[in-house]
Amino acid sequence: MKKHNFSAGPCVLPQEVFQKASQAILNFNNMDLSIIEISHRDKNFVAVMEKAQTLALELLGLEGKGYKALFLQGGASMQFLMAAYNLLETKAVYADTGTWAAKAVKEAKLFGEVDVIASSKDKNYNYIPKGYSIPEDADYFHCTSNNTIFGTQYKEFPQTSVPVVCDMSSDIFSRELDFSKFSVIYAGAQKNMGPAGTTLVVVKEDVLGKVTRAIPSMLSYKNHIDKESMFNTPPVFAVYTSMLTLEWLQNLGGIAAIEKINNQKAALLYSEIDRNPLFKGFAAVEDRSNMNATFNLVDESHKEVFDKLWKEANINGINGHRSVGGYRASMYNALPLESVEVLVDTMKKFESTI
Amino acid sequence: MKKHNFSAGPCVLPQEVFQKASQAILNFNNMDLSIIEISHRDKNFVAVMEKAQTLALELLGLEGKGYKALFLQGGASMQFLMAAYNLLETKAVYADTGTWAAKAVKEAKLFGEVDVIASSKDKNYNYIPKGYSIPEDADYFHCTSNNTIFGTQYKEFPQTSVPVVCDMSSDIFSRELDFSKFSVIYAGAQKNMGPAGTTLVVVKEDVLGKVTRAIPSMLSYKNHIDKESMFNTPPVFAVYTSMLTLEWLQNLGGIAAIEKINNQKAALLYSEIDRNPLFKGFAAVEDRSNMNATFNLVDESHKEVFDKLWKEANINGINGHRSVGGYRASMYNALPLESVEVLVDTMKKFESTI
Ligand SMILES: Cc1ncc(COP(=O)(O)O)c(C=O)c1O
Ligand SMILES: Cc1ncc(COP(=O)(O)O)c(C=O)c1O
Ligand SMILES: [Mg+2]
Ligand SMILES: [Mg+2]
Ligand SMILES: [Mg+2]
Ligand SMILES: [Mg+2]
Repeated sequence: MKKHNFSAGPCVLPQEVFQKASQAILNFNNMDLSIIEISHRDKNFVAVMEKAQTLALELLGLEGKGYKALFLQGGASMQFLMAAYNLLETKAVYADTGTWAAKAVKEAKLFGEVDVIASSKDKNYNYIPKGYSIPEDADYFHCTSNNTIFGTQYKEFPQTSVPVVCDMSSDIFSRELDFSKFSVIYAGAQKNMGPAGTTLVVVKEDVLGKVTRAIPSMLSYKNHIDKESMFNTPPVFAVYTSMLTLEWLQNLGGIAAIEKINNQKAALLYSEIDRNPLFKGFAAVEDRSNMNATFNLVDESHKEVFDKLWKEANINGINGHRSVGGYRASMYNALPLESVEVLVDTMKKFESTI
Repeated sequence: MKKHNFSAGPCVLPQEVFQKASQAILNFNNMDLSIIEISHRDKNFVAVMEKAQTLALELLGLEGKGYKALFLQGGASMQFLMAAYNLLETKAVYADTGTWAAKAVKEAKLFGEVDVIASSKDKNYNYIPKGYSIPEDADYFHCTSNNTIFGTQYKEFPQTSVPVVCDMSSDIFSRELDFSKFSVIYAGAQKNMGPAGTTLVVVKEDVLGKVTRAIPSMLSYKNHIDKESMFNTPPVFAVYTSMLTLEWLQNLGGIAAIEKINNQKAALLYSEIDRNPLFKGFAAVEDRSNMNATFNLVDESHKEVFDKLWKEANINGINGHRSVGGYRASMYNALPLESVEVLVDTMKKFESTI
């Protein structure tokens, strides 16, 4: 029996994606070859790459709007520096809403002036700062739509005329947004999109070409766009499996359809966290993430009892990150509602045990 | 029936590796979870990463000699710039022996003075330059041990007191060398080591810390060494499959054992290229690569006939690169001798047909 996998990333993917990916390792497209032994220039793989790019833009509602989708290597962490390398000429402004946002700030500082114009560090990142204004002379504004570790999520984004660069690693494809308000969106695949090993970067082309520094080929968005994400050997398996996951999402009805299920899952878990006297939520209620629910025991001495119960219930991956402690249940797109039901039942059983 | 896969990379891997990798996508280590849905901090994956690093150093004979093995993202192309970012303070010297070497030169030029002290560009890279000397004041000497596109390979490396950085993407783990003569060795996995999506970088630690520029975290060898190749989410599946391939090689008897087989395969094919009046080799005989054999038809008008024959023989991936034309048969570690026998038989059959 499979586990109820609440892992924060890499994380659960649709079961049919595991099946198809496993099969393609043995024999891809009836080529009598493994997906991992064919040339990336083979038309069978080129079609995969094109499909993945098209699906990404379609699902985000960005086709025909001047955007390109790239599947790069390096993880979201590489985008911390690539965003700055490609876009930061003089000054950029950042919102510091968690560990990942702070790392993005750190890397950008090597390339120019970086002003942190909003931060929730004062309260261990348990909320999303609001009511700040973005200076018009900034090259861009950088934010992190969902803070994986702390379990907070932007419900609204600040209005601004400067380009917005957004790290959507942990909530991309999970909810409807006007994605055309962003100039660069990036996301490590290993949450809502696929296995670790590739990163989706969606770039509005008109934001490029404004910095004077020379950019190494592998770090240049323009170069990757010109080469249609095949400047060098792409991470074939990660791109293929991402394509399968995006296909699954499209067949399900796209972001609108998954958002409803994600809302259901989150509502179910948060209402139990609130109702159950043994648990308390970590994040400010209005900023709670629908992807990562962070919660703690009211009385830490019960930890052993609860840990035993959820392990018995075949649950995996709900230990909290050390920055928050307690628990974190990640409910990405591919996590079935049933898994949340099992977790909630376990929390109730725990209540009746204590 | 499987194909005889002579693809230049990504390329054939051992059949047992395909089987194990396919299985791990469904259920890894009896965890009831896929290898691609577990946290990279899970002890089951940490063990994979450690094993891959240990095997790489052991196979190269570099354990306990001050080296660290990293499995990074970005491909060998990312190493073109990372090598320079981390090591080039004033001046570096390069040997230009092919397309990849030339790309390495191009990226390094963004970071300091780069002198090309040897080149075989004058003859479309069909040989390895010899007899040049390496200036003692260079920060490092960069070379490409095997030139995938042109089918040439260093049989001996120049003597020097400066650190040697070597792109071994297409012949790592294929032949015994004194690897301790190199300060940095890098290789995209997708030839002799695994699927596309990770790059092995073996760094002698004492070569680091000598440049004054600030290095972004993701581009810093020292940072990746300090974090044991887990600074950010590694490309889990590519590392796992590389570990399986290195395990296969170790069980086979390591580099010494595979080198014998590689010599046999190469001898068989080159002797047919030489013997058969319809074919001629591209590379200078003394510099011929044991990994990539490049050859052309003496009379191009027979192309259609030969192409039909090898396709009928279930052969895949021997079309030459556009820079050379003709054919390229890549005979990486996992290609069975039998596949070369089939190719040679097909060349003989072609001779009898014409
Ligand atoms: C929001 C966010 N940004 C960035 C990262 C770093 O991603 P990667 O490990 O792919 O570099 C993560 C990883 O969990 C994340 O959640
Ligand atoms: C010798 C050599 N170096 C570098 C590369 C580039 O590797 P990657 O595509 O992983 O960047 C290749 C690719 O075939 C190669 O053969
Ligand atoms: Mg965070
Ligand atoms: Mg409560
Ligand atoms: Mg070459
Ligand atoms: Mg001949």
